[in-house]
Amino acid sequence: MTLAQALFAPRAVALVGASGDAGKNSARPLRFLRKHGYAGRIVPVNAARAEVLGERAWPSLAEAPGEIDHAFIMTPGDSVERAIEECGSRGIPVATIFSDGFADSGAEGAARERRLVARARALGVRVLGPNSMGVVDVPGRLALTVNAVLEMDGPQSGTTSFVSQSGTMLGTVLSRGAARGLGFSKLVSVGNESDLGVAELVELLAADPATRVILLFLETVRDGAALARAARAAHAAGKPAAVYKLGRSRLGAALARSHTGALAGEDAALDAYFRDCGMVRVDQLETLIEIAPLLAGRTPPDLSRPARVAVVTTTGGGAASVVDRLGVSGIETFAPDARSPIVDLTMKATPAQYTKALDDLLASPGCDGVLAVVGSSAQFHPQLAVEPIVRAKRGAKPLAAFFTPHAEASLALLANSGVPAFRTPESCADALAAFFAWRAPRKTAGGSAEWPRDLPKRGRLDEAQALRLFASLGVPVVESEIARSPAYEHALAYPVAAKVLSPEIAHKTEAGAVRLDIPNRAAFDREVKAMLARHPGRDMLVQKMESGLAEAIVGYRDDPLVGPIVLVGAGGVLAEIYRDFALSVAPVSEEEAMAMIDKVKGFAVMRGYRNLPRGDLQALARAVAAVSRLALVAGRRVAEAEINPLMVKGDGAVAVDAFVALKE
Amino acid sequence: MTLAQALFAPRAVALVGASGDAGKNSARPLRFLRKHGYAGRIVPVNAARAEVLGERAWPSLAEAPGEIDHAFIMTPGDSVERAIEECGSRGIPVATIFSDGFADSGAEGAARERRLVARARALGVRVLGPNSMGVVDVPGRLALTVNAVLEMDGPQSGTTSFVSQSGTMLGTVLSRGAARGLGFSKLVSVGNESDLGVAELVELLAADPATRVILLFLETVRDGAALARAARAAHAAGKPAAVYKLGRSRLGAALARSHTGALAGEDAALDAYFRDCGMVRVDQLETLIEIAPLLAGRTPPDLSRPARVAVVTTTGGGAASVVDRLGVSGIETFAPDARSPIVDLTMKATPAQYTKALDDLLASPGCDGVLAVVGSSAQFHPQLAVEPIVRAKRGAKPLAAFFTPHAEASLALLANSGVPAFRTPESCADALAAFFAWRAPRKTAGGSAEWPRDLPKRGRLDEAQALRLFASLGVPVVESEIARSPAYEHALAYPVAAKVLSPEIAHKTEAGAVRLDIPNRAAFDREVKAMLARHPGRDMLVQKMESGLAEAIVGYRDDPLVGPIVLVGAGGVLAEIYRDFALSVAPVSEEEAMAMIDKVKGFAVMRGYRNLPRGDLQALARAVAAVSRLALVAGRRVAEAEINPLMVKGDGAVAVDAFVALKE
Repeated sequence: MTLAQALFAPRAVALVGASGDAGKNSARPLRFLRKHGYAGRIVPVNAARAEVLGERAWPSLAEAPGEIDHAFIMTPGDSVERAIEECGSRGIPVATIFSDGFADSGAEGAARERRLVARARALGVRVLGPNSMGVVDVPGRLALTVNAVLEMDGPQSGTTSFVSQSGTMLGTVLSRGAARGLGFSKLVSVGNESDLGVAELVELLAADPATRVILLFLETVRDGAALARAARAAHAAGKPAAVYKLGRSRLGAALARSHTGALAGEDAALDAYFRDCGMVRVDQLETLIEIAPLLAGRTPPDLSRPARVAVVTTTGGGAASVVDRLGVSGIETFAPDARSPIVDLTMKATPAQYTKALDDLLASPGCDGVLAVVGSSAQFHPQLAVEPIVRAKRGAKPLAAFFTPHAEASLALLANSGVPAFRTPESCADALAAFFAWRAPRKTAGGSAEWPRDLPKRGRLDEAQALRLFASLGVPVVESEIARSPAYEHALAYPVAAKVLSPEIAHKTEAGAVRLDIPNRAAFDREVKAMLARHPGRDMLVQKMESGLAEAIVGYRDDPLVGPIVLVGAGGVLAEIYRDFALSVAPVSEEEAMAMIDKVKGFAVMRGYRNLPRGDLQALARAVAAVSRLALVAGRRVAEAEINPLMVKGDGAVAVDAFVALKE
Repeated sequence: MTLAQALFAPRAVALVGASGDAGKNSARPLRFLRKHGYAGRIVPVNAARAEVLGERAWPSLAEAPGEIDHAFIMTPGDSVERAIEECGSRGIPVATIFSDGFADSGAEGAARERRLVARARALGVRVLGPNSMGVVDVPGRLALTVNAVLEMDGPQSGTTSFVSQSGTMLGTVLSRGAARGLGFSKLVSVGNESDLGVAELVELLAADPATRVILLFLETVRDGAALARAARAAHAAGKPAAVYKLGRSRLGAALARSHTGALAGEDAALDAYFRDCGMVRVDQLETLIEIAPLLAGRTPPDLSRPARVAVVTTTGGGAASVVDRLGVSGIETFAPDARSPIVDLTMKATPAQYTKALDDLLASPGCDGVLAVVGSSAQFHPQLAVEPIVRAKRGAKPLAAFFTPHAEASLALLANSGVPAFRTPESCADALAAFFAWRAPRKTAGGSAEWPRDLPKRGRLDEAQALRLFASLGVPVVESEIARSPAYEHALAYPVAAKVLSPEIAHKTEAGAVRLDIPNRAAFDREVKAMLARHPGRDMLVQKMESGLAEAIVGYRDDPLVGPIVLVGAGGVLAEIYRDFALSVAPVSEEEAMAMIDKVKGFAVMRGYRNLPRGDLQALARAVAAVSRLALVAGRRVAEAEINPLMVKGDGAVAVDAFVALKE
């Protein structure tokens, strides 16, 4: 019996704490298993009664007869621990725990959860939950859940599986999908992920022959490296994975119990992370439900130019509402007649002509996908423009549909034919944008980076050390010298900059610890004296004055969720005020760094904007790639690092200010 | 018989071109009028047959018997003109023209349409269309349309009316609304708006006792001033108006046949315009359908601080998906327990406790609205968390709901109770954001602005004239003098700037027509000579060199769609690269200008950011208000005007570069 079998296809399930009151939540698993025709043995366990909803019940797991593959635990308090002990002694390989009061309820609960899982591991019992709403396998008729959604009649079988950090969303996806004919295979609510987490479930689904597409609803990422591995395994198995992740706003992120972001913003880091592991990130919840047929059997388009979609329509206004959104996402339209961005067949085409128009576009090299928009006829006259879509010759290039009216029968018709169909112009455009942004998992450069021997391995580096670290990675750094107390001798030519040398001062300008453009020795002595008044006894870092065509910021962070991230942004106040930066999982190649630089709007001033002189963006790319190699330092010692600014010149670039914080 | 009666409640309708083939589009109006129980007389007009679908038909309008209030014209080609003639001679006050081939099909059709409407005016016939899908009055059982949506059984009566520039969208809104219990009153497809346009229809609906909320689907704005008046009339009548307008992207704008925008971007100008006329602009199509109950009976909240919404939920994940979006829109959450942004009642509250939680929050001064999020129970157990919403004590503060599952019965239950309910987290957040951004129509300052006598009234002003115009409005301008050919004498102290004086040079820097920081007379002579090589014989504008803490751009445009608009943005390249500007309908007061300035991110550097010196933003606001008074010049002579840059100092501000283009 494999883990997947015990989880999704148990021959017998024990329902620990099954209620005899049909109206109670804890009566639902028994009711639902029966209702949906579970063929295995159902073993209610109830300390207080010998019968539950007409089924013989047992006072404890220990006393229940026969081999049991999966225990569903609903009892409160300490009885959970007792049930896990009994699972261990009986050899029940998987326990799903619905009971709450563990990590979901504070520090004490979290400690209790750690003890529980440690004991389960020792006993050889795998745990889903606690606080899991359960597991559903639609084709296998396993409705092992308390989610009310299973009150529905016969949900449709399909090949889309779903893993959710929200128990409610299991019901949402199943219910909304069923209402429009979208079928599902396996649905799992992971709860607190004390043992079985999202990553391991994705791995199981990647290996599951009944699953073609994997959907994820995430509140957070608990093990970024493991999920990245699982996503790559899914890609290798030809199973696209789409993810909806909470945390677009700080408010949402706070609610999803995630960590707060630094300048980079965790959501932008997650965007980079999902893209790098080959996952499709959708923006709208509706898109998560609707996108599976668009992905099933397809591979990442890996486009390096804007996508072009041909829009065929029987309604101008309906098409425009999608095209408008596609434009916002940078997607272009394609039409054989260049006078209009769409192919308008309003009341002009027979069904056969309509199918032919779709076939011609699907065969045309001019577009990357075809979208059919259907107006009011989709609701009452599907023969006019919906059925012709089903008859189109489909291939690798996606054919999708958007219906303007309420047209669930037509949506179901397309769902049954495997044609992606969308309810709203927004989710339609979101799905197409997500599809065309989809990339194969990135092959990251290997190798390693040396840690300079004379640098400390903990705490914060002072600026001279930080510059030395960046230089060791290959970043050109400003000519500098340490002028030591009390004489502050140095051999640099004027003008120079002088900075108090201390790892403790984070914001030198605010702390009065920087002087720029010092013209001569007398001025130098004056400025040093002034700084010493606030920072007595400190050495000074003296630097040659540098200037460039524009300033850039290059940053590195070992993100607690997704690991090493590199950032490049417009310098000065722009990165911060306008959030004008690009991120990638580190390390990156020079070419990848250049692609990041292309996304930074403020660098327009170095790309020939308004005839301004061009900057050496290749030198900037080299610096970004060099900084990103901090991810290759053994032990990933650096927590955060930043060059701000890196002066970009017409020829070359130079780091003039550096900050590095090591891990504790 | 008023226009509204003839349009929406005709006692008899003539169907010109009614087909006897029930499968044809032109048979639909007759079928639909019968199906939905129209009580008036139906008069089919068909040149080829004496009977249509069992109804006596007449060969021409002229021959049809009895008084007819409204003719619906479906015949092709020249017969439309003939039908209008007959409407005139018979005294039929309103003709709705479904036939296309007019302004919808190019210049020739547009000319034909102008002739048609001129003739209709002369005859006293009001025209809806051409290219109109028709008119529906649900409570009045008038289904005078070819839109297939009327195949539906008994759409629900309500108090929401809808005016659409897309015929398809009439069906979309009615069909999607009906599927979830939202009722409608009047729905109108305006087609080409050759005579009866959106503005006049909004005015009619503002005066319509059966209408409480007005919805608009717009592809363009054809008469901005008239729509603004109509929107104000609707506001005065206590009827909120919500609008969905295509054109968020250039692609969508192109498709919607609108004009291309200048720097300001027409969509941003439309945002300002809709807000100023007191309309609610929604972002998503679904929101347009769902928002009416949120607006009905309410007035603009006119908040001057971020809105606070209390979110009560039975599902953490479901609530988070809305809260995340609310956060993106800058809406805050409110909860009595400050440890969580939401009020989570998951499986803990009885229905009575749930209602009480809602009542307490609705009564609390801590929040501006309450949102109830309901999970899987909304589908099968409405008694748990849906019915308690209906029982809450509602008042001026909105109470809205979002259901995570497919739960149309629960949506209908709330619709029937007048509680706004949403299908997706995105439309829910969009609706709340639009509601809280809603403002009463702005009272614009009256008055007038003088046109300096010595300035031309047409064409483009040269820079000296442009600066004089701005100075006349009260903008401080740089000290300037014209140095005339051939001696180029001037009395300004050095350093100075020198510019070729010519109304023809739009981009002086690119044209080599500017020199800055000229230190003395010898350098001045040299620079002037160099500029004269490219611009022979020109006079020079000599200006004192000015500097400031930051640069701003102040612009004015008489927008072809929405009229005079004033813009303030970050100077230099920032406004353009980052689209960092704020817009308002002109004129604005100094206080309103300050509110605009608050929205420009780049001005952070003058608001004390990182301890940088503060700029005189009040002086900037005075300049913005002054420039906006161009809208008060008799004849609104100015097409476009711009100060770029306006130098903002620690004390005061000064315009150093000016451009003004007058109308032709």
